Amino acid sequence: MNNFDFCSPTYFVFGKSRETETGKYVAKFGGKKVLIHYGGQSAIKSGLLERVKKSLDEEGILYVELGGVKPNPRSELVYEGISLCKKEQVDFILAVGGGSVIDSAKAIAMGIVYDGDFWDFFSGKSPVKALPIGTVLTISAAGSEGSENTVITKEDGMLKRGAGGDCLRPKFSILNPELTMTLPAYQTACGATDIMAHVFERYFTNTKDVEITDRLCEAVLMTMIKETPKAIKDPNDYGARANIMWAGMVAHNNIVGVGREQDWNSHGIEHELSALYDCAHGAGLAVIMPAWMSYVVEHHDCMRFAQMAVRVFGCEMDFENPKATALEGINAFKSFLSSIGMPVNFKELGARKEDIPTLVDKFGIGDGTTGGYVPLDKNAVTAIYELAV
Amino acid sequence: MNNFDFCSPTYFVFGKSRETETGKYVAKFGGKKVLIHYGGQSAIKSGLLERVKKSLDEEGILYVELGGVKPNPRSELVYEGISLCKKEQVDFILAVGGGSVIDSAKAIAMGIVYDGDFWDFFSGKSPVKALPIGTVLTISAAGSEGSENTVITKEDGMLKRGAGGDCLRPKFSILNPELTMTLPAYQTACGATDIMAHVFERYFTNTKDVEITDRLCEAVLMTMIKETPKAIKDPNDYGARANIMWAGMVAHNNIVGVGREQDWNSHGIEHELSALYDCAHGAGLAVIMPAWMSYVVEHHDCMRFAQMAVRVFGCEMDFENPKATALEGINAFKSFLSSIGMPVNFKELGARKEDIPTLVDKFGIGDGTTGGYVPLDKNAVTAIYELAV
Repeated sequence: MNNFDFCSPTYFVFGKSRETETGKYVAKFGGKKVLIHYGGQSAIKSGLLERVKKSLDEEGILYVELGGVKPNPRSELVYEGISLCKKEQVDFILAVGGGSVIDSAKAIAMGIVYDGDFWDFFSGKSPVKALPIGTVLTISAAGSEGSENTVITKEDGMLKRGAGGDCLRPKFSILNPELTMTLPAYQTACGATDIMAHVFERYFTNTKDVEITDRLCEAVLMTMIKETPKAIKDPNDYGARANIMWAGMVAHNNIVGVGREQDWNSHGIEHELSALYDCAHGAGLAVIMPAWMSYVVEHHDCMRFAQMAVRVFGCEMDFENPKATALEGINAFKSFLSSIGMPVNFKELGARKEDIPTLVDKFGIGDGTTGGYVPLDKNAVTAIYELAV
Repeated sequence: MNNFDFCSPTYFVFGKSRETETGKYVAKFGGKKVLIHYGGQSAIKSGLLERVKKSLDEEGILYVELGGVKPNPRSELVYEGISLCKKEQVDFILAVGGGSVIDSAKAIAMGIVYDGDFWDFFSGKSPVKALPIGTVLTISAAGSEGSENTVITKEDGMLKRGAGGDCLRPKFSILNPELTMTLPAYQTACGATDIMAHVFERYFTNTKDVEITDRLCEAVLMTMIKETPKAIKDPNDYGARANIMWAGMVAHNNIVGVGREQDWNSHGIEHELSALYDCAHGAGLAVIMPAWMSYVVEHHDCMRFAQMAVRVFGCEMDFENPKATALEGINAFKSFLSSIGMPVNFKELGARKEDIPTLVDKFGIGDGTTGGYVPLDKNAVTAIYELAV
């Protein structure tokens, strides 16, 4: 196990109807004038936004609103949010929505207290300061409600890039599983895939002696395998929604990933897909992650894949041929993704083989290699996209 | 899953040599004059206390010292600590030691900012305020480094009682697994038992739809089963010590226990043993927990024990006779405890059958019942002590 620091100070408020307490928590963390940041019409139609505003009113907290966050949230709206907040002297950013809304809120929160262009933080600069952020989560997926990360897409060149820092951890996050019951099966499955991918990015590591985090990773994965089909079969299954929602947080606040090298190449490779085709991030991951596994298992000792197969997917260990077990595990993952309605190849996603050179080019490693479980060069990234075709 | 709040804001500083950064973290959390609270000679002889003081000196932080904390920490030293800190105008409590030292430090931290008798907080009053606390952990066991709890024994009547509140979560905890390498095998095993018990108290629940926390509980238990024998066989096995140390925190900061009823009767029943005989808490738990399981499995549907048997101890499910599987799991746990050198009955612990009425009397439920997975009355508690004989 490697040395590490870990701090997840977010106050989590979990359960039925808890969004009615939003105002109380904004007040607890010092907010007096709030930007309510949200996505499309669903937050309005469902009455969620009204409930949130009512709870702010009850605490005498002022607010301005900015909707319109899209999946793969864009820099343009971030700039708009920063201007609005500066003009309105907002002191607290409240995200009401899924990972895209939260990520956009995080970018605004950094940008307000920074004199330069907020995109600097997505080009290598570390954020050290941000306005306090609160969230009312409506989609179990990105884990942004408990993470220090944000991903934004810049329209100019459709660059999808991430930033991260302790100051981006939300002060509080309200997780009401009921709010996810209206999600269509496809979005539920996309979210589940994203959650599992967050674990796999941590699971595949060259760090030794990490049994505790291995087991915690496997705990989240097994939960997702059991609970996701239940939520898809019955969207109103509160228990399944609740398990998925907490699993989504646990998967990405890094408690399951401390002290170990992490990979994150699948996320990087996927980002080019969702940037180019504007597909759901989870759907892109469902296509890329098994392809990445199929590539990597051929370029590394296969025992970690065999461990995943046995411990997570319940495969029987083939002691004479561990590789067979490893491949069985990868197939089990791919079959699981198909079973919950995810695309698992370019065709099902609507991606085109002829775009691969563009995708590889945008991935932008030039003649270098990435880090990770198996370092990848340009040819390897090309091979992974081709395996995904 | 039940509604819940969860916040574990402690900053964890994990790994080799990290205690040399103590001063930096005291400064980060505003400490200017520190009480260094510790136990016996080992912290001095090992040079740990010197390294900690050096790091405080480097930051220009003043300190006073109070050693002498014993296992099952006593109220007398807490009173002494409170007086000393008031006189010296201490503004930060630094615990250097195991759970007993940290618990004593927490009690002092509450007592300083309270006008009445600190014991009020161990008699039902909720603490809302405390001086900031930091820890340098030397024993993987109590989980106090990440928890909101403390347990103190009052000499008058040898009452062992707990208190808890958000204000008792340490601001930072430094976890260097190297510091645990000098622990004798017996203490290592006691700590491991305590860690597993913290999980079992959460695992046995009547709350439905708690797959994620079930799986997280099982993750910690399986880690302990794998890593503890390695640490006992080779005390210098850094990987094993590291896994156990992080598992100990995860077991008790409540991330594995949110949203579910918890039991804690084994802890209550054990507390009377360690209060009366001054035995190690972990050793007492090794005697009580299997006895509690043996009693409870007869008074409840056995499926949760069968789940433990199959998922944690790798037993094969007997579908015709799930009870047999449940009992096999309990036996597997007891055998595991024996294998790491723990006592598993009164005789091995040095407890006396004839004290059972006294123990039951001190447990203090009178004619009432406890809550928990199976509510217990006086007769049930007696039966559990008798099963432990």
